[in-house]
Amino acid sequence: MNVVLSIIIFLSGILYAGEPAEETEFIRSIYQTCLTKDITYSNLGLLCEKFPSRLTGSKGAAGAVKWTKKLLENYNYDRVFLQEFMGPHWERGEKEQAYFIISGERNDLSVLALGRSVSTPEAGITAKVLVVNSLDEVDSLGAENISGKIVFYNEPFAQSHIHTFSGYSESVTKRSKGPSHAARYGAVAVVIRSVGTAMDDHPHTGSLSYAEDAPQIPAAALGYQSADKLYDALQKDPDLKLTLKINSHTFPDEPSHNVIGEISGSEKRDQIILIGGHLDAWDTGQGAHDDGAGVMQSIGALRVLKMLGYIPKHTMRVVLFMNEENGLLGGKKYAEEALINRENHILAIESDAGGFVPRGFSFKGADSILMHLQSYLPYFPPYTIESIISGGGGADIGPLNKSCDTPLLGLVPDSQRYFDFHHSPADVFSAVNRRELELGTASLAAMIYLVDKYGL
Amino acid sequence: MNVVLSIIIFLSGILYAGEPAEETEFIRSIYQTCLTKDITYSNLGLLCEKFPSRLTGSKGAAGAVKWTKKLLENYNYDRVFLQEFMGPHWERGEKEQAYFIISGERNDLSVLALGRSVSTPEAGITAKVLVVNSLDEVDSLGAENISGKIVFYNEPFAQSHIHTFSGYSESVTKRSKGPSHAARYGAVAVVIRSVGTAMDDHPHTGSLSYAEDAPQIPAAALGYQSADKLYDALQKDPDLKLTLKINSHTFPDEPSHNVIGEISGSEKRDQIILIGGHLDAWDTGQGAHDDGAGVMQSIGALRVLKMLGYIPKHTMRVVLFMNEENGLLGGKKYAEEALINRENHILAIESDAGGFVPRGFSFKGADSILMHLQSYLPYFPPYTIESIISGGGGADIGPLNKSCDTPLLGLVPDSQRYFDFHHSPADVFSAVNRRELELGTASLAAMIYLVDKYGL
Repeated sequence: MNVVLSIIIFLSGILYAGEPAEETEFIRSIYQTCLTKDITYSNLGLLCEKFPSRLTGSKGAAGAVKWTKKLLENYNYDRVFLQEFMGPHWERGEKEQAYFIISGERNDLSVLALGRSVSTPEAGITAKVLVVNSLDEVDSLGAENISGKIVFYNEPFAQSHIHTFSGYSESVTKRSKGPSHAARYGAVAVVIRSVGTAMDDHPHTGSLSYAEDAPQIPAAALGYQSADKLYDALQKDPDLKLTLKINSHTFPDEPSHNVIGEISGSEKRDQIILIGGHLDAWDTGQGAHDDGAGVMQSIGALRVLKMLGYIPKHTMRVVLFMNEENGLLGGKKYAEEALINRENHILAIESDAGGFVPRGFSFKGADSILMHLQSYLPYFPPYTIESIISGGGGADIGPLNKSCDTPLLGLVPDSQRYFDFHHSPADVFSAVNRRELELGTASLAAMIYLVDKYGL
Repeated sequence: MNVVLSIIIFLSGILYAGEPAEETEFIRSIYQTCLTKDITYSNLGLLCEKFPSRLTGSKGAAGAVKWTKKLLENYNYDRVFLQEFMGPHWERGEKEQAYFIISGERNDLSVLALGRSVSTPEAGITAKVLVVNSLDEVDSLGAENISGKIVFYNEPFAQSHIHTFSGYSESVTKRSKGPSHAARYGAVAVVIRSVGTAMDDHPHTGSLSYAEDAPQIPAAALGYQSADKLYDALQKDPDLKLTLKINSHTFPDEPSHNVIGEISGSEKRDQIILIGGHLDAWDTGQGAHDDGAGVMQSIGALRVLKMLGYIPKHTMRVVLFMNEENGLLGGKKYAEEALINRENHILAIESDAGGFVPRGFSFKGADSILMHLQSYLPYFPPYTIESIISGGGGADIGPLNKSCDTPLLGLVPDSQRYFDFHHSPADVFSAVNRRELELGTASLAAMIYLVDKYGL
């Protein structure tokens, strides 16, 4: 690519100079500081290295709570505190196994139990496999075909959508409802082709939700290539038997915690701007994109404003929510407390879609507020925040909107790679690009700055 | 991230339904086909696997020419041909070495000779090191400080720009002009901190250009971490000596080739729409993003139109240029031939900025044509092509603009990760995301379709 183009593209980056100089310059300095000063990246690396496995109730989660509390304290917040609630404690136990035997040879598959899955008997479950693509197909096949079998939801991720979250919402039902749906017809276990965009062999876990009207059967996700392997083997031998071993265990609930850091407002102390992500992560990979990125971007957004000497008018709160992955109890607890304490959150912002290049924000609230926020768009450098559209804000801040009618914003990064990593062993720090991560931090900081300065 | 948001974001993807249904639907089908049918990804994988090293004059380049010609023939073009010219033949030779010795212990650095660099004597060059940050600093230090030393351009990549190409154009001068500039003051060799955005230890090569008024001295790039290592050692011992060994050799020019595939227009056969990238790549890594991606996207763009049964009115040409990296002779040869044969190119499009998420196009030509092209923007799905701005089109098609005044378009993908890989051993197929690559192909195909349908 030639230099002329580079320069012209750069020049296009200052075409928004028509905006008030002060805001434009300050926001430019936010982006430049994030891109040059490592506001977020190293902190994410440390979180991933020290506490890669952070599922609610685990030692990793407890350690991450303690460590991030200390981190916030080091950044001189006016108040750092924990919010305790009783959270679930599910453990995977010994590594799962899934295999079939062809002419004496054992073929092992890459597998992860779904979150909350019950275990199999110690010897595992060995049964014939029925391949289906949808819950409807399960209904049409009925008990006579399903009873006593392992149901294999083979449907691949819906890749045709430009937004992978659309494909995800279309494909994830087999993971969340598929097990109980098959159990109603007598299935003994369920395996699914992982809900992910990559065609590698990393299995992607994630919560299933057992229905009350169906027996709880074990369920696991297969890597894309392992799903192909099983499917191909079944084409050759439909009577082939699959063995599935899951060693999970559900323990009594444990005290769990949201981590909260607060900077008191200089003018409007009783009006809170919240920014956060979730600290818990699945017990595979390192929860780097989901959601270590959002946690460290939230901390980084306030950190860069402080570094640039900005004194917020409103009270700023960074909230690291626990238990987004398997219960959302952290978000619910926070909303309960906010209601009880009659706290006034003028806006809650969440980053929970990966540490990728920011593209915009999604919003939930009154149209008048949305239009007001959209009027900030010209302050953002080109190729960063280009749109603020109606939508949701984020799972953890959802309850705050329900209970207190708080307006919500969610950072919308580019979504192409998110489901390559999501809930899988591939979601590690090395899969995060420093510049992309820091641009997200800068976009969050710029938005907080504008809302703090102009209100809503 | 919650499902509501996913769905709303998806819905926002069909808000441009105000456009004529036919074009909108066809373009949607282009994107869906690319995202679901592997139009580009596997071909890029094969190119990277079979011919990872494709520098002009090399066996890899010759093999890639032969193989891509065959590939085009298999796609039933009306005409597939080669365009021959004499190209340079520079070889790195045996792996370079750069090291210093502290208290008897040898410290090896991660190093790559710059393209076109002369070799050192077989024993290497061992000399004291002078750290500088700019060419101006070299001027101010002068011969009395520089003579007999190895000059070390330590300036890091200009990370503060949101567009990394702006940082690149600011930082690359030390690589292109730095060696001759230091040689004028008697430097015996030059090492530079690699011109790259990552902070890993991959060295990034690239062409230097020797000035006629200066002796040709050996020059090499150090990995970011190796540059730190050398810098830190020099702080402790300014008299430390660095040994640099480069075993490069420049051979006589070799017959080299552009590869061209043509589909004759059904109505305007004498009007050509060109799409291309460059087939040559540095001899390190696999040239996956630079520019295997652009080559395979160009082939893929015509392929997907054919798959969808579209019959072009204009003649479509895919051109795989040779020698972009160290001479641009392929682009110049193509422009010469076009002028001699009085060919009428109504538009030339290049993809040479990596296989990342497409963000827009840059344009070079008359304002009236730019405005006409900008009127196509509403046809592109949101979050794909959002802008067409004045700029360059691409290195290889530049000469066509000079000689024939052909309007140029360059695909502008997101630039955050490009210089992590560019010209380094990290530019490999596994660094390419399938969806991002195919979205680029779809954007090129959609643009060609619109230009073919509505002209310019």
